[in-house]
Amino acid sequence: MTPPRFAFTIAATDGRARTGSIAMERGTIRTPAFMPVGTAATVKAMKPGDVAAAGADIILGNTYHLMLRPGAERVARLGGLHGFMGWDRPILTDSGGYQVMSLSELTKRSEEGVAFKSHLDGTRHLLSPERSIEIQRLLGSNITMAFDELVPTTSTREVQAAAMERSMRWARRSRDAFDAGADHAARNAIFGIQQGALDEGLRKASADALVDIGFDGYAVGGLAVGEGQEAMFACLDYAPQQLPVDKPRYLMGVGKPTDIVGAVERGIDMFDCVLPTRSGRTGQAFTRAGPINLRNARFAEDQGPLDPACGCPVCATWSRAYLHHLVRAGEILGAMLMTEHNIRFYQALMADLRAAIAEGRLAAYASDFRTRYTRGDTGETK
Amino acid sequence: MTPPRFAFTIAATDGRARTGSIAMERGTIRTPAFMPVGTAATVKAMKPGDVAAAGADIILGNTYHLMLRPGAERVARLGGLHGFMGWDRPILTDSGGYQVMSLSELTKRSEEGVAFKSHLDGTRHLLSPERSIEIQRLLGSNITMAFDELVPTTSTREVQAAAMERSMRWARRSRDAFDAGADHAARNAIFGIQQGALDEGLRKASADALVDIGFDGYAVGGLAVGEGQEAMFACLDYAPQQLPVDKPRYLMGVGKPTDIVGAVERGIDMFDCVLPTRSGRTGQAFTRAGPINLRNARFAEDQGPLDPACGCPVCATWSRAYLHHLVRAGEILGAMLMTEHNIRFYQALMADLRAAIAEGRLAAYASDFRTRYTRGDTGETK
Repeated sequence: MTPPRFAFTIAATDGRARTGSIAMERGTIRTPAFMPVGTAATVKAMKPGDVAAAGADIILGNTYHLMLRPGAERVARLGGLHGFMGWDRPILTDSGGYQVMSLSELTKRSEEGVAFKSHLDGTRHLLSPERSIEIQRLLGSNITMAFDELVPTTSTREVQAAAMERSMRWARRSRDAFDAGADHAARNAIFGIQQGALDEGLRKASADALVDIGFDGYAVGGLAVGEGQEAMFACLDYAPQQLPVDKPRYLMGVGKPTDIVGAVERGIDMFDCVLPTRSGRTGQAFTRAGPINLRNARFAEDQGPLDPACGCPVCATWSRAYLHHLVRAGEILGAMLMTEHNIRFYQALMADLRAAIAEGRLAAYASDFRTRYTRGDTGETK
Repeated sequence: MTPPRFAFTIAATDGRARTGSIAMERGTIRTPAFMPVGTAATVKAMKPGDVAAAGADIILGNTYHLMLRPGAERVARLGGLHGFMGWDRPILTDSGGYQVMSLSELTKRSEEGVAFKSHLDGTRHLLSPERSIEIQRLLGSNITMAFDELVPTTSTREVQAAAMERSMRWARRSRDAFDAGADHAARNAIFGIQQGALDEGLRKASADALVDIGFDGYAVGGLAVGEGQEAMFACLDYAPQQLPVDKPRYLMGVGKPTDIVGAVERGIDMFDCVLPTRSGRTGQAFTRAGPINLRNARFAEDQGPLDPACGCPVCATWSRAYLHHLVRAGEILGAMLMTEHNIRFYQALMADLRAAIAEGRLAAYASDFRTRYTRGDTGETK
């Protein structure tokens, strides 16, 4: 039997939330899903086997970083991203649109695309819808993202509208470029990205334009860029509902645990964020009672696990006191163990959310989670 | 049945080389043994489970580093080094003598001991035989090392002789301090350290003094400090033979793979060195054809494993091209995988040496190893 290219099944709903799965050739993605970020062909400080063991069904790779180092053509010559990094499950790649506008220097935008200088070595590059899709294909991406244009959320409505409209023209070009690679397209998927900032009308126009083109899934783009949780949730009160009910909805770059819980309640199926991995390298651990920073002197002789409610291998073996020591001493093992715990925490959260939706108790679960998470006396930013 | 405190058995000899085992309460150490260095309560960039899986029966902890951070009394309150770091097999601790004289500032030596300022925060400390042994007991060390005095190999014979003689008085005080902790002494071991630089007569006097006191094992100290392999081997042609044949002989701080092979041929049973771990963090991998540096551009598209003759999990999964990418990108996973391979390489070397001795073919094995290792076209320092 031929494995499915991309089969999204909703097994249960609870309010606007859904749980189910996406079956693909390289494996099945349980939704709602959290995708650890593997920026430069590595989920930082973790072996791929440990990422999978943590419960991640899919990871994200960054087109911008990989095109600059080691280079998309090089990755292709080396057998694609999966073989290169030793990860055999699905990989979603972003389009590079966000990083090229936030990390690179001297960007010059036109209808053609974005010209920029590498933040690594100053070399000149062009990212266009066609080149972005080509790079993602060279990487061997299983879920390709359309190339879009981002503008600051503080821009005028006129600027937002123009950027959204250009993104929709680029979405069409992205879809065409994806379909032109027929062999790859026959076995992989492409998502469109809804834009329109915090404007319901622009969001609706964007959704309609994307549906006209037709994608395997739809991302809500342009959020989690500093607007705050309240504004983001206000947008998520309508934006996901403008997208097809029978396709996965992906909220890009989100987020904190309470962001994810609230977004799942609003009908989001997929997430990615650097927070668990980046926090793991700066001494922050996620716990059911809120985040804690292990640099804090109060953990120096704390023999408890990072999170008493956690059953992960890190919590089963090492104390807060030991992790405090490693973080203070700048030991690599500190980053390794903290990252592993944080990825385990995020995957456990997604598993809990899936179970709560399946059992029709999401509202109670979410309320309880928020209460515990925000009343913790951890003294850290929630 | 009470587990043995310290039972050294020689199963086979081949020339001056021996293979056997040391049975202790926490496990059996196969000899010749290589001890990965766990300086600050971590074998850098490796989980303890992976260190054990690599074949390490024992690791080394550094008294100097641990007394300064997190502090010996703190480690004791947290249940000792084994529980703190999650390593349940034997641990050997050094005495701090070498580090206090090489890393700290403002050392002031007297018959009492060495006063110094921490290289971390400038706090003042005293290390004496009694305090060194106390710290090692607080850490829960299974093999305690006597506290000794080191002087540069370029010192005059008079200075060398005086330092050796003081070290022998300190060895007596170390033994007494160890025995004073009767509960700990009943279940653990202490080694003396032979000094005398490159002078056969001083080495003999030192060995005799140590044997008069009586230890569970004997280290050859004061080598691998810049004298070169030829001078070290010249010393090892006589120094180990001055020590009891029925006790383990430990060559401290050694070394490169060819150092280890030559030292095993000269009757050494135990080694420790930061080389495999430190090299792993700077992009150097050990292979049967000599070391290679993965930063080198020639590995950018090399799809082979680090070492074609290696069966370790790293070589089974990732290419030189991927490791080159990780090293160039400064990724933590690069340090993790390179370290794991290097520790695997060292443990495989020890296993090969043990098998060669047991089968009476050490000379052929050693000759073949040196030929392959030094004729590699790797262009690196052997």
